[in-house]
Parts: sequence; C-alpha cells; structure tokens
Amino acid sequence: MRNQQWLLDSRPEAEAQVGHFKLVTTDTPALKDGQVLVRHHYMSLDPYMRGRMNESKSYAVPQPLGEVMIGGTAGEVVESKHPKFAVGDKVVGMGGWQQYSVVDANVMGALRKVDATHIPLSHYLGAVGMPGVTAWYGLLKICQPKAGETVCVTAASGAVGSAVGALAKARGCRVVGIAGGKDKCDYVVNELGFDACIDYKEHTDGKALNAALKAAAPNGIDCYFENVGGWILDVVLARMNAFGRIAVCGMIAGYDGKPLPLAAPALILMSRLKIEGFIVSEHMEVWPEALKELGGLIATGKFKPRETVAQGIEAAPEAFLGLLKGKNFGKQVVKLV
Amino acid sequence: MRNQQWLLDSRPEAEAQVGHFKLVTTDTPALKDGQVLVRHHYMSLDPYMRGRMNESKSYAVPQPLGEVMIGGTAGEVVESKHPKFAVGDKVVGMGGWQQYSVVDANVMGALRKVDATHIPLSHYLGAVGMPGVTAWYGLLKICQPKAGETVCVTAASGAVGSAVGALAKARGCRVVGIAGGKDKCDYVVNELGFDACIDYKEHTDGKALNAALKAAAPNGIDCYFENVGGWILDVVLARMNAFGRIAVCGMIAGYDGKPLPLAAPALILMSRLKIEGFIVSEHMEVWPEALKELGGLIATGKFKPRETVAQGIEAAPEAFLGLLKGKNFGKQVVKLV
Repeated sequence: MRNQQWLLDSRPEAEAQVGHFKLVTTDTPALKDGQVLVRHHYMSLDPYMRGRMNESKSYAVPQPLGEVMIGGTAGEVVESKHPKFAVGDKVVGMGGWQQYSVVDANVMGALRKVDATHIPLSHYLGAVGMPGVTAWYGLLKICQPKAGETVCVTAASGAVGSAVGALAKARGCRVVGIAGGKDKCDYVVNELGFDACIDYKEHTDGKALNAALKAAAPNGIDCYFENVGGWILDVVLARMNAFGRIAVCGMIAGYDGKPLPLAAPALILMSRLKIEGFIVSEHMEVWPEALKELGGLIATGKFKPRETVAQGIEAAPEAFLGLLKGKNFGKQVVKLV
Repeated sequence: MRNQQWLLDSRPEAEAQVGHFKLVTTDTPALKDGQVLVRHHYMSLDPYMRGRMNESKSYAVPQPLGEVMIGGTAGEVVESKHPKFAVGDKVVGMGGWQQYSVVDANVMGALRKVDATHIPLSHYLGAVGMPGVTAWYGLLKICQPKAGETVCVTAASGAVGSAVGALAKARGCRVVGIAGGKDKCDYVVNELGFDACIDYKEHTDGKALNAALKAAAPNGIDCYFENVGGWILDVVLARMNAFGRIAVCGMIAGYDGKPLPLAAPALILMSRLKIEGFIVSEHMEVWPEALKELGGLIATGKFKPRETVAQGIEAAPEAFLGLLKGKNFGKQVVKLV
C-alpha cells in the first residue's frame, strides 16, 4: 500500500515548527508471519511528543531523526498473518504519524483489539486510552483524593484534564479547572461538570490568578494535577493545603526553551506537600481497572469527552503545534479515513 | 528560683541578629499540683527556630514576640508536685531558652524521663532526640532506601545529617555527604563512616559541585535528604536517578530572605521523582521505634554523634546564629549547669 509518513527531520532549538517535520511516501512492505497491516483511521497528537523532539536528557528515548514520528493510532486490520487478528478487526496501537503500519502482533501490548460499536474508535486514543489512564493514575495513585477535598487541574478542557475532573467528581470532590479562554471554561463547567473553572487568559499575573483561585477554592487545594508548569504552578503551590498532593504529569510551558524555575520550593516543606512525577506507560498494570472505570463513566453519561479532529495526514504538524498552544478543545486527533 | 530567659524581641527583616533577642531575669512561680520545676542542664539549638522567628505563613505557629524562645531542653527535676516525677529525675522537654521551666507534667508528652547513665544527657537533644528521629522519619518513611542504593544528605556533619548517614549505612547504602569545610568532611568520612563527602566550599558553582557529585555518586543518587535548599538542591536534583525520592527536612538557605527558586522543576517529571516535605513533630508515633534503633547504633559504636557545646545562657543567641551559618560541628547545644 502507498503510505504517507511524517518523519522528524530536525530538532527544534526553541519553538517547534512545521519545518521540523517532513512528509514522505513509501510502500508498505510485504507481511512476514506474525505481522499485521493496520490502516489507521485516527492518529493521536499528544503534548509528550514535544519532549521527544528534543535530544536533551528526557524521561524517554528521543524520537530518532529521519524516522516516523511516534504516536498512538486507532484503525482497522486490512491484512493479517497472525492467527489472532482478522481483516476488519478494530485495533489500537502505536503506529505513529502515518497512514498504515506493519505491526509484530506477537509483541506484548503492540496491538489491542477494541470494541468500536459501543464507544467511538477515536476515544481509544483519548478518554479510554492513554490520556484517560494518565488521569486515572495521577489522580488515584498519587493524589488519592478523599470526598470533600478540593482537586485542581490545569489544561482542564484537554484529554487528560477532563478525565481528571470526571474521576474526581465521581469521588465527591470539589473540582476546580484552569483553562485558557472563556469557551473552554464554559465547557469545563457546563458540560464536564466541574465546580469552577478559571480562565488564565483573563488573570494574566500571579496576583490575579491567586485571587481567582482563592475564590474558586475557598478551602484551599488538597490535590493538584499538574499539566503545565511555569507561573501557574507557582500560584497553585501557594494555595495548597497542608499535606497536599501534586501529581506531575506534564510541564508543557517549559518544553520549548530553557527550564522554567519554581519560585518558592520552600512551600514543599512549609505545607508538607508530596510531589510526584510519573509516566503512565510505566504503570501498565493499572490499565484494565482504569479503562473499566472510564468506560463506565462515559457509558453512564457522567463523562462527555470532546475531540478536536484535524482532517487528513497532511494536517498533522499544524494540528500538533496548535495543541502545544492550546488551540485544541478536548482530545486532539487526526482523522485519516 | 532566679531564672534567666531569652525572649524574642523583634522579627528579622533579613538575616537574624543577636539584637532580635532580649535577656531578662524573672523568678520561677510557685508550683501548682501536677507541676514540676526543671533545671535545664542543656538547651537545644536547631535550624527550625529560625523559621519560627518569621511572622510570614510558615508550617508552624510563629514564635510570639516577648515570650521565651521555643526549644528542647534536657535537665533535672528540682521540685515536684507530680507523683510520677521525683527530685533528681533526668528529664527531657520543651523548656525553651531559659535556665528553669515549670512544666504541667500531666500534659501528654510534655516531660519524659530518660536514662542518663548509659547515654549522655545532652544526646537526648540530638542523636536520640528530635534530630535523630527527624533523620529516621525522613530517610525510612519517605526515602525508603534499599541496600545498594546511593543516599545523599546535606549538612552531613550536623545532628540530623550524621544520623541519616548512620541509618543509611546500617541498610547497606552508599552514603555521600555534602558539608562545608575540610574538617567537617574529614569527620563525616573518617568518624561517621560515610563513603564520601563533598566540601561545597571547595566547589562553589553548580558545574564544579556537579562534577564532584558525579565522582562521589557514580551510579547516581536514589535518595536525597534535603537540609539546605538553594543551588545545592539544583545540583543534586540533576543527579537523581529515575524514581528517586527526596525528603525535604529543611531549606535553611532560604530562611533569611525571599524564597530561593528551584531551577529546573521539570526534572521531577523527567526523572519521575517523589518529593515530600515533613515535620517530625507530626509523626510522634515513630519515636519509640526510631529512638530504639538510634540508641542501638550508638551503643554498638556504629554511630558516633558529635556536639558543639556553648557555655552559659548568655551564649545562646550567638551560638544559634553560628549554627545558621554552619559554624557548629555536629549537634549544637548550650550547657547551662
């Protein structure tokens, strides 16, 4: 099959640009025994990919130059030399930024069959996929919120943030989101059911954001799910209650340039905080339990995930750069079929 | 009894000075039922007292102006109206910066009888007191080091740091100290038995300290016991292994002025670190177990705590300010009798 692929062509010095990617066309190779050819219906775009574009020491192997960009994919088996996968099966894997992928289906976890009749296929890249499990792990294993506590999450309208909110509401918490723009905040409160949402574009300095956060979380913050870093983290840190817990999932604000400092680390001691960084792919053991709960919340209408869908493989870099700037609204995917 | 007392007279704007304290003389009041009069033989001086001198939001109630400075004391009962305490008993409590204290001995934990025949009385303010238990809690409950891992501790020759080292060695860890000055480092290695000690006064910038730390901890750092904060924390953070644990016990570098930033908090995510602040007085349940182990290490010669002893009540403020600057060598006490 003719296969269009996005390769990483060069590494950003600062802000990532479309020119760091290169579109090429190849033919898919003939299948060997145990392999499956998957046609991707959806490609996932996620903030972590920005980190992989850098060569510097990061928490994961850098994306190699000249190779297909890494990424989750959901699609359909179109050819199979593996007994457990048949043509027509809907599958989820890490096919990368391309139209087709050849998968060694014997590799543990490389390809997973999914039910696309009850849940839309693209949701397996979002609410019932990696972002959903990320929310579940960070909130439940690190923050461990109790009923009545206040949970705060940044990038609240995004794939991870929206799931954090749904999971925290299900546990009887007060949930306060932080997001960029009135539309996003309206969605977070009205459709996702958060108790409050603060538009950081309306509160553009620490003092204003602090006042807004104090009003939205009058009893302080017990759990913080960190997706952005930078000055917003500084403000939230100062509003954390004693014995608060912070799950560090992302620090997107610092991905483009030099590291952003944390203004007052002494608060960790003063408020006896616990802060923990994590990567969901290192905790595969929680996936079944997490996906079960997330699927249940969606099925019962308690969690209404939203997507931003870019059309066609050519649109991927632009959509990815938009995601890094917060232009998406919910889970960002690229529709290929 | 005629009783000399040090009061907090004013709050520092920046660096603490002798002039912030005021020496007064009073007479001890007559005892009521249930009270005990204790003559202090030793007063404890500890870094946490600097935090209490500030009015700003802190993790503890500020030291009130015009009242006797807070602090641990070890002494002898000289008069008693409590059936469980007799004249001559050796006791430990929180008598503060004064020669005598009247203690309501019915208050849980206010006064504790100790055995001063096998362990010197002053050690109950250090190695088998609050600093020792602080080391025990932070290392064992937060860092949870495993045999073969590398443990790093700052202020390594101090009351807390030396106990951290002894406890970590007892668990088969490689222990690397950081201390100020060749004498302290020699003591840390030769007498306390650390595997290595880095003199931060010899490595005065991040690059040099980083190189020294890399040489002393060639396999990286798994556990960090934080006593100082500031630029040393920045360097250690960059040398932490994946899934490293950091117990935040003190950030003495930032006590005098505005908060010191943390340069690269993104490392928390990249290295999937767990960072937790704590105050030992909130974990009284571990004291018996901790004191038992610490006492055992001293009795078997595996832990040789050292003291700096200031003479007389008048010397307290000067000795305290010296402690904040690292002039002490091991546990700082004031001998009153």
